[in-house]
Amino acid sequence: MSREILERFPVQLEVPIAWGEMDSFQHVNNLVYLRWFESARMAYFSQLNYEGVMQETGIGPILRDSRIRYRIPLTYPGNIISATRITRLEEDRFSMEHLVYSLEHEAVAAEGDAVVVCVDYNKNAKAAIPEYYREHILSTEPIKPEIFD
Amino acid sequence: MSREILERFPVQLEVPIAWGEMDSFQHVNNLVYLRWFESARMAYFSQLNYEGVMQETGIGPILRDSRIRYRIPLTYPGNIISATRITRLEEDRFSMEHLVYSLEHEAVAAEGDAVVVCVDYNKNAKAAIPEYYREHILSTEPIKPEIFD
Amino acid sequence: MSREILERFPVQLEVPIAWGEMDSFQHVNNLVYLRWFESARMAYFSQLNYEGVMQETGIGPILRDSRIRYRIPLTYPGNIISATRITRLEEDRFSMEHLVYSLEHEAVAAEGDAVVVCVDYNKNAKAAIPEYYREHILSTEPIKPEIFD
Amino acid sequence: MSREILERFPVQLEVPIAWGEMDSFQHVNNLVYLRWFESARMAYFSQLNYEGVMQETGIGPILRDSRIRYRIPLTYPGNIISATRITRLEEDRFSMEHLVYSLEHEAVAAEGDAVVVCVDYNKNAKAAIPEYYREHILSTEPIKPEIFD
Repeated sequence: MSREILERFPVQLEVPIAWGEMDSFQHVNNLVYLRWFESARMAYFSQLNYEGVMQETGIGPILRDSRIRYRIPLTYPGNIISATRITRLEEDRFSMEHLVYSLEHEAVAAEGDAVVVCVDYNKNAKAAIPEYYREHILSTEPIKPEIFD
Repeated sequence: MSREILERFPVQLEVPIAWGEMDSFQHVNNLVYLRWFESARMAYFSQLNYEGVMQETGIGPILRDSRIRYRIPLTYPGNIISATRITRLEEDRFSMEHLVYSLEHEAVAAEGDAVVVCVDYNKNAKAAIPEYYREHILSTEPIKPEIFD
Repeated sequence: MSREILERFPVQLEVPIAWGEMDSFQHVNNLVYLRWFESARMAYFSQLNYEGVMQETGIGPILRDSRIRYRIPLTYPGNIISATRITRLEEDRFSMEHLVYSLEHEAVAAEGDAVVVCVDYNKNAKAAIPEYYREHILSTEPIKPEIFD
Repeated sequence: MSREILERFPVQLEVPIAWGEMDSFQHVNNLVYLRWFESARMAYFSQLNYEGVMQETGIGPILRDSRIRYRIPLTYPGNIISATRITRLEEDRFSMEHLVYSLEHEAVAAEGDAVVVCVDYNKNAKAAIPEYYREHILSTEPIKPEIFD
């Protein structure tokens, strides 16, 4: 599994492993991978101008669920790439694929996915994906997301 | 959804929410729920005498994957109960159900599951679930796990 | 060093140690003690109605510095008490003493102090300690803080 | 305060701020700065071959105390440099200076220091600084540490 696997991901962050992220099993703690997922997700949200959209419309993203499959126990020192892409658009939610790629192992250390729901915080109710998100996603994702709506 | 939902869980930990566990969305960060899952899982592993079994046989548990569904955004202050039970035994792995119950909301704040694989660290290979685990699980779980092996 | 040492602290929180808070030296990571300090500090701030005071006056507390002395390496499982008190009032700041008491060791596991500055977020400048804080502190601290102003 | 201030530090790590490291005051949480201190400290320990020395002699470093002065509240996104140097050698301990430099602010965001004690884990007692540490420190620190022994 080489680094080519990253090509389909429009968001990629390189992050150094901190020593203190290892737990008493002497591997990177299982939560840290989720922090890497989150960091990539927030980087994507920034590209979607989620703060500006929130101010204008009151609509913002909220994490509904996530799933992770651990493949390689990681240790300090090392660097990983946290990559994400949007794979599916529904009316009020979208799905993201996540990957953690270890530069030391030259292999995928974990993979997962997440569903993000759009919420209108003024109405406290689910809301349609903002048009700005949708356009940005469709114009920048290397592989077009599936569309269900 | 009342607290009766907890009855089927043999492991239950009450944990106070720390102020510093909220993120800049002013809710408890998504990782913290996974820490609560982990705390209940490790409490269960202690009941399985995983450290003693590891020393004797070289076999120990490793988290293979996990999944979480967020239901209620939580805030400080408050207390949760992190509950877990084993739902399924396979030859070299078992499945756990996780629940985070909010005492303030009197409702399930998150639920999930995880698969734990048994590894023989001497052989660096998967191993059958240690007999001690299996007996303890079958004799203490209020609802018998499904068995596939 | 017995539990009597806690008597002079008006704020005391009991917190369970999480397994995942141990690092690869197999002790509770040094940061976790600071989280316990923070939790006690925020509990004290709540007693000072810091959110209400902030909304009314624009003035809130900010951590300026802190110091910690580690005495006992802790391990999971166990419970600690995080205790804090205010020891000194100056015009625009106050000093806090912190203690982490291990219930397993029946001894102080760490101690420290912190200086908290009051900031007027509207003017982006230091501000005098709000009168409400001062009255609450002076009427509830078992040992009167030193006053410098 | 320009970046020249970093020149005297033999260990410097660049670390990206993670979104999830901000707390509900919408600044990087106070603990995160200590994680950055720790990361630089562990990088220094690696240069001292602390794991090899530990295996050979049973002697390793343990954090005795630390102190931090916060100067600039940080926000995501951004990158910091965590720098450390050893400023003082005593018989069984050494002192470290820590700096967190914000690349966005082009200024010191926090500074602190720490005392690290050498412990003989076989004897469970304090031990003299291993000769290998001492030689490495004296031959690589741009500013010679004070020596007290």
